[in-house]
Amino acid sequence: MQDKYSEKILRVNLTEKKIETHSLSEDITRKYIGGSGLAAKILYEETFPNIDPLGEDNLLIFMAGPFTGTPVPCGRHSVVAKSPLTGIWGEASVGGYWGKELKRTGYGGIVIKGSSEEPVYLYIDNGEIEIRGAGYLWGKDNYEVDQVLKEEIGKDIVVSSIGPAGEKLIRISGIFTDGKDSRAAARCGLGAVAGSKKLKAVVVRGSKKPKVFYEEKLKKSLKEIIPSMREIPKRLKNLGTANLVIPCEQIGDFPIKNWREGEWDKAERISGEEMAETILLGHYHCAGCPIGCGRKVKISEGPYAGVEGAGPEYETLGLMGGSCLVDNLEAIAKANELCNRYGIDTIEVGGAIAFAMEAYERGLIKKEDAGGVSLRWGNPEALIEMIHQIGEGKGLGKLLGEGVARASQKIGGLALEFAIHSKGLAFPAHDPRAYNSIALGYATSNRGACHLQGFTHVFERGLTSPELGYSKVQEPFGQVGKGEFVAKLQNLMCLFDSLAICKFTLFGGVSVSNLLDWLNFITGWNMSLEEFMKAGERIFNLKRLYNVNCGVSRKDDTLPFRILTHKRGKGGAANNLPPLGRMLGEYYEYRKWNEYGIPSNEKLNDLEIKIK
Amino acid sequence: MQDKYSEKILRVNLTEKKIETHSLSEDITRKYIGGSGLAAKILYEETFPNIDPLGEDNLLIFMAGPFTGTPVPCGRHSVVAKSPLTGIWGEASVGGYWGKELKRTGYGGIVIKGSSEEPVYLYIDNGEIEIRGAGYLWGKDNYEVDQVLKEEIGKDIVVSSIGPAGEKLIRISGIFTDGKDSRAAARCGLGAVAGSKKLKAVVVRGSKKPKVFYEEKLKKSLKEIIPSMREIPKRLKNLGTANLVIPCEQIGDFPIKNWREGEWDKAERISGEEMAETILLGHYHCAGCPIGCGRKVKISEGPYAGVEGAGPEYETLGLMGGSCLVDNLEAIAKANELCNRYGIDTIEVGGAIAFAMEAYERGLIKKEDAGGVSLRWGNPEALIEMIHQIGEGKGLGKLLGEGVARASQKIGGLALEFAIHSKGLAFPAHDPRAYNSIALGYATSNRGACHLQGFTHVFERGLTSPELGYSKVQEPFGQVGKGEFVAKLQNLMCLFDSLAICKFTLFGGVSVSNLLDWLNFITGWNMSLEEFMKAGERIFNLKRLYNVNCGVSRKDDTLPFRILTHKRGKGGAANNLPPLGRMLGEYYEYRKWNEYGIPSNEKLNDLEIKIK
Repeated sequence: MQDKYSEKILRVNLTEKKIETHSLSEDITRKYIGGSGLAAKILYEETFPNIDPLGEDNLLIFMAGPFTGTPVPCGRHSVVAKSPLTGIWGEASVGGYWGKELKRTGYGGIVIKGSSEEPVYLYIDNGEIEIRGAGYLWGKDNYEVDQVLKEEIGKDIVVSSIGPAGEKLIRISGIFTDGKDSRAAARCGLGAVAGSKKLKAVVVRGSKKPKVFYEEKLKKSLKEIIPSMREIPKRLKNLGTANLVIPCEQIGDFPIKNWREGEWDKAERISGEEMAETILLGHYHCAGCPIGCGRKVKISEGPYAGVEGAGPEYETLGLMGGSCLVDNLEAIAKANELCNRYGIDTIEVGGAIAFAMEAYERGLIKKEDAGGVSLRWGNPEALIEMIHQIGEGKGLGKLLGEGVARASQKIGGLALEFAIHSKGLAFPAHDPRAYNSIALGYATSNRGACHLQGFTHVFERGLTSPELGYSKVQEPFGQVGKGEFVAKLQNLMCLFDSLAICKFTLFGGVSVSNLLDWLNFITGWNMSLEEFMKAGERIFNLKRLYNVNCGVSRKDDTLPFRILTHKRGKGGAANNLPPLGRMLGEYYEYRKWNEYGIPSNEKLNDLEIKIK
Repeated sequence: MQDKYSEKILRVNLTEKKIETHSLSEDITRKYIGGSGLAAKILYEETFPNIDPLGEDNLLIFMAGPFTGTPVPCGRHSVVAKSPLTGIWGEASVGGYWGKELKRTGYGGIVIKGSSEEPVYLYIDNGEIEIRGAGYLWGKDNYEVDQVLKEEIGKDIVVSSIGPAGEKLIRISGIFTDGKDSRAAARCGLGAVAGSKKLKAVVVRGSKKPKVFYEEKLKKSLKEIIPSMREIPKRLKNLGTANLVIPCEQIGDFPIKNWREGEWDKAERISGEEMAETILLGHYHCAGCPIGCGRKVKISEGPYAGVEGAGPEYETLGLMGGSCLVDNLEAIAKANELCNRYGIDTIEVGGAIAFAMEAYERGLIKKEDAGGVSLRWGNPEALIEMIHQIGEGKGLGKLLGEGVARASQKIGGLALEFAIHSKGLAFPAHDPRAYNSIALGYATSNRGACHLQGFTHVFERGLTSPELGYSKVQEPFGQVGKGEFVAKLQNLMCLFDSLAICKFTLFGGVSVSNLLDWLNFITGWNMSLEEFMKAGERIFNLKRLYNVNCGVSRKDDTLPFRILTHKRGKGGAANNLPPLGRMLGEYYEYRKWNEYGIPSNEKLNDLEIKIK
């Protein structure tokens, strides 16, 4: 019997300059769906856990999913590799247009192995695939690369690239797409993996419409949901993700002074409202998105004149703003653009600079270490200067570009006290003290501290999911049941990242059944909700198993001691400390993981995962 | 005005072979009392925090206190140095007769600096002080050294010595006294400090009665308390500390299978009751003690025939028995004797072997690594063989002799999961899940995981202290108020270790007022309860400050993740997980420590401690 749904994968070996194509058959795509699920399967099976993330044995996997490029809105793709930042499972999900365009070439994913000796970029134009010299692009920033390649090849290409930071193997560098309408696979240092392979960019252009098995059914279903997706998330549409700054500061979720404080009376100055009234020029969308949360900003005057393009997202405002106490929106917009151009993760950058500011306050870093810049809290010039140093791998930036975990280990002593990360990944701008589920989620997320791997907090602030058994909004400070809740949501989010679709669609009323229906309409399968959720569980467990092979166990499923023991003290989450121990035990029990946090054989058999 | 109470200190420089005497005047003794308090003052002021604990800059301080050698029963002395096991504050308190005898020489303490090139021992006979060659003692075990020196010099000397383990700089070696009636400064690796100085022994003999300012008043007060000290702690008297095995297993306090399980049906086989019916020969006392908890045992037949001398204490039974699942009392008695002879800490040894057994179960240590011995749980032969290897610094023992923290770091990966220690010191045989105060106590104790530094658990099981505001027995699983409770008890225990007196006197009805009265009677002071408790607080904070200078901060005030997140599951403490975060915040607040866990300037000023 022929497969109803398979995925064509491009295999590129940069050492041998070899290009192959192979298909992933239905028995695999049905179990691992696509996106980060399929990528997990490939990384797990084809690499040893102890490889050097920056060596030629690491794979760099770009993987779209069944939804990407179809009429389902908000499709995405994942980038996966062993992370040079954390030494474990590395993934990042990206919106924009690149994933859609990849699917239109006829390929669902690209697995890149080996390393080129000289800079190259990969060119995929439908079936025409070339490894092209990129010496003339080396050193260019992401905005420039996008522009040069479009001028050279045509405006209808979509470019994923690394900036100078990825070239220099900076461990907090990412892979960026869509030029000035910037979208990024920012987390986990995947830019450095591309840099280690001397891969400057991957250019895609396609004209093939991805196959949809039941096209009419899909159209009909989408027609029903699109109006609510367009109407419900008004604040997100009007103010972008920056709409969260004010409410998150109020509920005690916003990082303030490197996670030391509970309130910040300057939050308004860097809010979505402030942006809308000042530097906002317009907004931009990912493929097919009816919301369009991306901000276009422009600064024409003053010290930050010249900024033009993507504006800062909530996470950027949280880490560079709140956590560094920088209340200058224009400076953050400039800093954000620099990060996009250099190709570095704004979360890691903000986290590292807040860390440096605390080290400076404590006398562990001196002004001369920072090239004469005062790293006092709130200094916008320090933010800008440190980003230049990080992006160029110079001065103190060389240390900070290693990420907070490594930087703190190199400084040692008290610096270990205030390096705010889990498993080496800096915290995004949501405080585990404001939601117990976020605490458990950061502690157990496979890529390290990440709110998107569980996305549980939105179900503790407004959303429900009757299909998963959560008909009521969950209690953020509750304890009982959090283990099961977080595990289920993590499984679901694995599906989002495999299909792959934006999690913000939840705000537009998209339900688990919608996702499953669409998957069945596209693939022609008749998958049940149970099988669907089990695929999510399988994907999560496989990533965990990858991490276990890298040395991860219960001891790593934790949070910085500051977060476990130091209250915010003021504001909306003044007195909560997440009871991680209790929740973790319940979580392991629900997941059927053993006392070390390793999936039991029973569970792995049930999920049809083979131990390597 | 002449000091009412000063302490004469012997200063020995082993590099320069120089001996000096100086006096600590009343402004110091009144603030730091004696014992580990005075030793803390000296170590803090006279050494840099970053010295090599096994280098000649480390000090090895023996310090008795105002009570030692007086008619107050159960006097002790402390041994203090920077710990080669933990790299931070190291102290151990010892009973027996050595402290008393030191005081009778006229000296209250000995501060040893530098290192000898050839083995030496220090001889103090009243005012006659010599550094003597000890080449002929090098390699001898502690029982032998005691015997040889007594045969040579006289039966009335008291010997503190190191065994072959201390000579070989094994980091879990201690300093032992009183030959076969063994008492030990076992914890923190102080034997290796002596070994690094090539100091085999310190021999004391004295005939001077320590001065008591109000002799009659002291006599009268003691006359009132002695009967209750003799009568109340019957189980302790009859069964030794081993009396705790059965009740502690029942309440979920006893370590089982490296802290993984909640019940052990073999506990009776290694209990005090079992010992009393089988190998018990008699008991022995520390100086002036009306209880006499020391066990004399003898084994005449079978594989462990030949054992004769000190029997295993509760801690030894907990770690070598319960934690290794060894239910053979005779084997543990043999193992205990071997530890006394080699001069190693039975707690660290039991902890390290239980750790090795778990590593063996997980396949991280193979049979061939262990010299062909099967490290299966409960194997008594493995216990014996590993102790030989540790004592001799050979084979796997070389690794285990580094202590569980270092051993786990060297093995890496999953081994880090089950290394049960705080700040590098292996857990004694009390489970933080059975008493929340013990959790907070282990996390904040200055020498690492230790129940004796707070001794709080006894106030959660029977004892009260109205003078400190605890008229009722405290709730072991309670949360509110634990911060203050633990801090106060730690301050009090600093006084016990400075006076220095055995904490078991609490079981005999000795109160805080008794201690204060006796101190005032001995010194002629008129110290108030407030001043007294403040001295305890000063001492605790000074030790903390020493640790802060060594790099300790909030991040280190924690427990192994197994203890924080994994329930015992069965037995008397089946479901409790200590809420460390909440308690720690309250504790810092009460102590007036800052957010990093560093004593505030305000607090240090109040305590008249100068920052170095």
